[in-house]
Amino acid sequence: MKIGFIGFGEVASTISKKLLDNNVDVLSSINGRSDKTKKLAKSSGIDLVNSFEDVALSSDILISTVSPFEALEISKKYGILTNGIFLDLNNISPKTTLEIFDFFKGINEKKSSNFIKGSVIGKISSKNQIIYLSGENSNDLILLKDYGLNIKVIGSNITDSSYIKMIRSIYSKSLTAVTYEAFKISESLNMEDEFFEVLSITEGKDFEIQARSRIKSLKNSHERKYEEMIEILKFLESIQSSNDFRANNMIKATKNKFKDIK
Amino acid sequence: MKIGFIGFGEVASTISKKLLDNNVDVLSSINGRSDKTKKLAKSSGIDLVNSFEDVALSSDILISTVSPFEALEISKKYGILTNGIFLDLNNISPKTTLEIFDFFKGINEKKSSNFIKGSVIGKISSKNQIIYLSGENSNDLILLKDYGLNIKVIGSNITDSSYIKMIRSIYSKSLTAVTYEAFKISESLNMEDEFFEVLSITEGKDFEIQARSRIKSLKNSHERKYEEMIEILKFLESIQSSNDFRANNMIKATKNKFKDIK
Repeated sequence: MKIGFIGFGEVASTISKKLLDNNVDVLSSINGRSDKTKKLAKSSGIDLVNSFEDVALSSDILISTVSPFEALEISKKYGILTNGIFLDLNNISPKTTLEIFDFFKGINEKKSSNFIKGSVIGKISSKNQIIYLSGENSNDLILLKDYGLNIKVIGSNITDSSYIKMIRSIYSKSLTAVTYEAFKISESLNMEDEFFEVLSITEGKDFEIQARSRIKSLKNSHERKYEEMIEILKFLESIQSSNDFRANNMIKATKNKFKDIK
Repeated sequence: MKIGFIGFGEVASTISKKLLDNNVDVLSSINGRSDKTKKLAKSSGIDLVNSFEDVALSSDILISTVSPFEALEISKKYGILTNGIFLDLNNISPKTTLEIFDFFKGINEKKSSNFIKGSVIGKISSKNQIIYLSGENSNDLILLKDYGLNIKVIGSNITDSSYIKMIRSIYSKSLTAVTYEAFKISESLNMEDEFFEVLSITEGKDFEIQARSRIKSLKNSHERKYEEMIEILKFLESIQSSNDFRANNMIKATKNKFKDIK
């Protein structure tokens, strides 16, 4: 069996190692990719072919591990070429997942049923990591478990694994906003130390490390996170009745919070 | 040394045990109290005197452990009588703490400097519990450490220990609102199980127990929590400039969330 990657970053490299250890043929192409990717791919020991077209045409399972912004285009360009399974592992929204699905559906049923959405939860390199899979033929990928991948098939509904990622994002981003706000109020009362101390009593001894990390990362990424909250709200409102919009009020407050970070 | 309690519930009973074990004289009165309190006080082995007046007049340290609603009145009625330290351990807001302080200050400086505010963080019966103390003479209570109480003196600013309780409340109530909202969205997507599973990966294995407990307790207590958020917002706005009001937007969203729980 041959497994091909479009894009070769940390996720592809980590998965490849496990596949190679289990004697799976792994291939990719570095034509036109960054120096960093070229170096990573060359040192990985996978087969390198001339183009992504070749990767797509030779693979039984084609895996897209590019950037979220490229994901749709890559699906249309290369996902379409493979006769096997096309697995998207990018961090894309339920909306983009549906766009890809609808594109394949427009071609034929086989293409759409062979499209599988995967969401990597947790750091790909960590032990706790899980790859959630959804899509009509997602059971076809259970065999990846035998190759050391921590796979969990959720069901045939293509968007399910994107939902999981979205739900996780809603919770963790809102928690970041709560942590930031409570910290800033503590700061204004000259009680930063007490903030960490008192919450460690009930939230556990790692509270300070986690909270400081959330606050620090927010300063560098609040614009991206603000955009992400807008996307999530747009998507939720597209599937909710307008009566339910206020069910999102913590998400809305989180979005507004992220806009104001200085 | 004599330590007297006004009110004798779980906090008083737990502290009394430690004091009695360390041969401190402990007293209270059950005159006019509930049957439950009477039973608890009688079985505790403390000295029972005729009235709270007697308790207040004989105590070197007088501790108020009543309900938050009675706290102000009890301070005015009995806190005023003692010649020693008056320690309030009730779960009252910074605003009520200041009201008590101002009342004592209106009498004389000695009364206000002998008023100490304590906040019990964590369950009184648990090992992790800490009693934060603030007030001008709060160092006078460090001796309670020798009697097995986990005391931490924060400083001379009377409101500091109420601030700690408020900060903790802001964080934990907002986290409850976030958990509730993310859970309800998951539920609407038929992904309740995945909600708990995926967040356990990053938030720790106790996530499900904690989250379910937050959601369940909210259903029974959302009205009280809604009122509490209103009180916190009122207080914050009384100490902030109006430019800073939007710094409270997660708290406001939490308040609105709690109003809507069904």
